[in-house]
Amino acid sequence: MAHIDLNNDLPGIRGLMAFRPEVAAHLNELAELLLRADNSLSRGERELIGTYVSYLNDCAYCQSAHQVLAQHYMECGLEEMEKIKRNPETSDLPPKLKTLLAIAKCVQLGGNAVSENVINLARKEGATDLEIHDTVLIAASFCMFNRYVDGLGTHAPSDIQFYLGRAESRAKEGYAAYNPLH
Amino acid sequence: MAHIDLNNDLPGIRGLMAFRPEVAAHLNELAELLLRADNSLSRGERELIGTYVSYLNDCAYCQSAHQVLAQHYMECGLEEMEKIKRNPETSDLPPKLKTLLAIAKCVQLGGNAVSENVINLARKEGATDLEIHDTVLIAASFCMFNRYVDGLGTHAPSDIQFYLGRAESRAKEGYAAYNPLH
Repeated sequence: MAHIDLNNDLPGIRGLMAFRPEVAAHLNELAELLLRADNSLSRGERELIGTYVSYLNDCAYCQSAHQVLAQHYMECGLEEMEKIKRNPETSDLPPKLKTLLAIAKCVQLGGNAVSENVINLARKEGATDLEIHDTVLIAASFCMFNRYVDGLGTHAPSDIQFYLGRAESRAKEGYAAYNPLH
Repeated sequence: MAHIDLNNDLPGIRGLMAFRPEVAAHLNELAELLLRADNSLSRGERELIGTYVSYLNDCAYCQSAHQVLAQHYMECGLEEMEKIKRNPETSDLPPKLKTLLAIAKCVQLGGNAVSENVINLARKEGATDLEIHDTVLIAASFCMFNRYVDGLGTHAPSDIQFYLGRAESRAKEGYAAYNPLH
């Protein structure tokens, strides 16, 4: 049960969005721009950054909800994604994406944990300033979303099938016009 | 110097907002709603929550920029505010606000660090569900803003006078129509 009375039984951020729709609209617009708008980083890469940060923050709901989207876009299976989350370094991901995940890992620890060195490694692998910027902000935004969802004690279905069943429609509909009741 | 080429010399989040104005618009609308829109928590109380989280995250720019706003709204001096940041518990703040800052402190550590106990203490002091919700989200949003500002290595003027000189106009203009160049 959530820490506050949400007047609904919706899981994760959906319960919060139904409780405070004025805020939800802004959060969804931010997610749409960061995760889905035109970008040299693919939607799958951006959902993976969000998934990885949610994993590091131990946020069950966000981790599952975004992992199934990353899997959908990257055409990647559940087992492979679990391996990537546990250790992106030893995965088969492209070198540039690995360096962006390394930046995201630093951001999760704190803004001051991002060193010039980790930025330079990404740049060496071809990451642009805009890609580095967006990686930092996506990682930072999941540090907000994860704290919002868990800080209010919302519940997260434990069966990954719950999330898998919603991935295709979520990918199609996007975040901007998201209705938490659906 | 920032970790990426921002094409400007603006400090803190202002440099980032000038670099990526599409994102800035959404972040500013979120800040306007959370920190300034009608609310049973005063603007000063909400700016204080943001200041305190920025202090805990050791984010120099956000801490100073929002501290001077908290001081402005709460008609509180620099020394008093420094004491509050270091130990809100022993300050002269009202009991309810102390319990909300205790929630914010947990959120800064991580969403799962927020216990039912710390929520109940706030409720006992009269905090409503909406106030608890907004406290968690304000604290979570500063965990994003702080990581964004420091994760990209932006610079922060070290003299508090720089921020104090801007407080009154910032309080008047708000965030929604914020122009980072001014």
